[in-house]
Amino acid sequence: MARRGTRPQGDEFNTLPVAVDAMGGDRAPAEIVAGARRVAEETDILVALVGPPGEMGDIGDLPTFPASEVIGMDDDPGQGVRRKKDSSLVRAAEAVRDGRAMATVSAGNTGAAMAAALLRMGRLPSVIRPAIATPIPNPGAPWPTVLLDSGANAECTPAMLVQFAQMGAAFAGKRYGIEKPRVALLSIGEEKSKGTPLVKETYALLADGAGGAGVDFVGNVEGRDFFEGIADVFVTDGFTGNVALKTLEGAMRFLIGALTGILSLPELAGAADALYPHLLPLAANLDPETTGGAMLLGVDGVSVISHGSSSSVAMVNAITVAHDLAVAGLVDAVAASVTGVTTPD
Amino acid sequence: MARRGTRPQGDEFNTLPVAVDAMGGDRAPAEIVAGARRVAEETDILVALVGPPGEMGDIGDLPTFPASEVIGMDDDPGQGVRRKKDSSLVRAAEAVRDGRAMATVSAGNTGAAMAAALLRMGRLPSVIRPAIATPIPNPGAPWPTVLLDSGANAECTPAMLVQFAQMGAAFAGKRYGIEKPRVALLSIGEEKSKGTPLVKETYALLADGAGGAGVDFVGNVEGRDFFEGIADVFVTDGFTGNVALKTLEGAMRFLIGALTGILSLPELAGAADALYPHLLPLAANLDPETTGGAMLLGVDGVSVISHGSSSSVAMVNAITVAHDLAVAGLVDAVAASVTGVTTPD
Repeated sequence: MARRGTRPQGDEFNTLPVAVDAMGGDRAPAEIVAGARRVAEETDILVALVGPPGEMGDIGDLPTFPASEVIGMDDDPGQGVRRKKDSSLVRAAEAVRDGRAMATVSAGNTGAAMAAALLRMGRLPSVIRPAIATPIPNPGAPWPTVLLDSGANAECTPAMLVQFAQMGAAFAGKRYGIEKPRVALLSIGEEKSKGTPLVKETYALLADGAGGAGVDFVGNVEGRDFFEGIADVFVTDGFTGNVALKTLEGAMRFLIGALTGILSLPELAGAADALYPHLLPLAANLDPETTGGAMLLGVDGVSVISHGSSSSVAMVNAITVAHDLAVAGLVDAVAASVTGVTTPD
Repeated sequence: MARRGTRPQGDEFNTLPVAVDAMGGDRAPAEIVAGARRVAEETDILVALVGPPGEMGDIGDLPTFPASEVIGMDDDPGQGVRRKKDSSLVRAAEAVRDGRAMATVSAGNTGAAMAAALLRMGRLPSVIRPAIATPIPNPGAPWPTVLLDSGANAECTPAMLVQFAQMGAAFAGKRYGIEKPRVALLSIGEEKSKGTPLVKETYALLADGAGGAGVDFVGNVEGRDFFEGIADVFVTDGFTGNVALKTLEGAMRFLIGALTGILSLPELAGAADALYPHLLPLAANLDPETTGGAMLLGVDGVSVISHGSSSSVAMVNAITVAHDLAVAGLVDAVAASVTGVTTPD
């Protein structure tokens, strides 16, 4: 089993393919395969499809890692990974583990993608729990705001949140080239006395320079701050993070839907024609498909988890991000960022 | 001390004024007093202003409850209420307690308004903790979605959440005339296995008809469901609820700001003129100022807590809602809804 350090290095690593789960997502395999083919045709990135031969549609001349089973969107993640050992998600993670792929991308069952990465790639040393980092598009800032954990761990400890801060900063650094990412804690008020015991204890640990968390902690932020550009990384537990992420998605979908409805009124055809050239760039900047998907941080490999509704465009972005971060050494950076955390409890 | 049942009843109660904290909010006292005067001039609702005589501006011939102190927006809520016994917030709550007012309205320090209501009006029998219920405007549904707790209790137990479900349903019934409000639990997936232990235990209690919660529990909802109209009441702890509420506010403010920016481009003046008549009703429907503010449920009196940025329009709505709910018997309905909750722990 090729662990970090024993895997292919340098040029050898850089010429490994990105293993793409052809069967994951609401629009699989067609949109997944279309995105993978576009990357292979238009860039130097190598792509391998993972799935049942003959069931992936027209895959052109893309190489494959065969996998006879599929973990469905509604399958129990843990059971799915344990029982379907020949599934596309499991085989993709094994390809990274064994040094045959540089990264995985899946738009399938998020929990199963996490479980496959955790069980097959393994956790990085010292990491208590991996977390999902989701870039929140922010058209007013030079880069998205990274939210983590956006759903991997419903229950968290202060030590876990400190590590999320460290891993999130490492990710923001590699992903957006931010030299010293500003890390904030999601709470219900700016004051350090606000929030749950979890938030207050984490605040104390992050604010304690001597604790050696090694991140640029800027204090608490609130839900209304996602578009304010006051921090690059928002740290929270996976329950709160998931609720916030889906609340944002719901609000955006609702407002954009309402606006589209208004602009489709016959009497507004002229206004719509004038407006769309200005609205489309805004909508594109807000579209989660442009961010390249969420990233599972803390496992021994690059694992990109795309939205279940991902189109071929989303897959192009996700595969590109997976490749770029694998080559940039994301896993080593995350591993180096994480310290054992000493907590009072 | 006039407790529920010993206070003025019937016609006598219905002719009490609504006590309005003239000094609470970012735009106090001018906007507060303007709203109170409009209600007094344009409706049959009686209004009394609470604040320092001579410091409330032009109050016309409105009656007052004098109070020499003001609890600021940044004051510690508990300390503020304990130390400033002659503050407008404390005196307003006392006016309800003593049967001199039917309800209070404040746009001031939310925590202090809660503390004043809790300490002066008192908790209703059997209520473990009061909660803040916030109506989330939903233009696609016949009424807003009620979110509670939206910030009173960062830490909650399953028994508290069951009571929030009961109180929220009683509020939605009185406020919107919903015969059998559909109550949902905010989580990170529809399945009852999803979420924190708090959510899973609450799910079990609410789903157990024999438990006698007496609400129409429709299961879990997610953050993306606020505009879907699938439940009338969303129940959660005050930390998650506050993050979700502020995330919604932030997303709305961002998108409306971006749209306003686009529509102010000189070359889009014509399109903007055509569009605004359609956009303004949508914006009005989404405006929290139209919902009449949040309501503290579980205390022995009607206490409306308006947004800190409340204008005179928001105050008109808040005072009207406070009056209508006091007359409709909200407090009795909430008291009747709450059962002692037997939990395994």
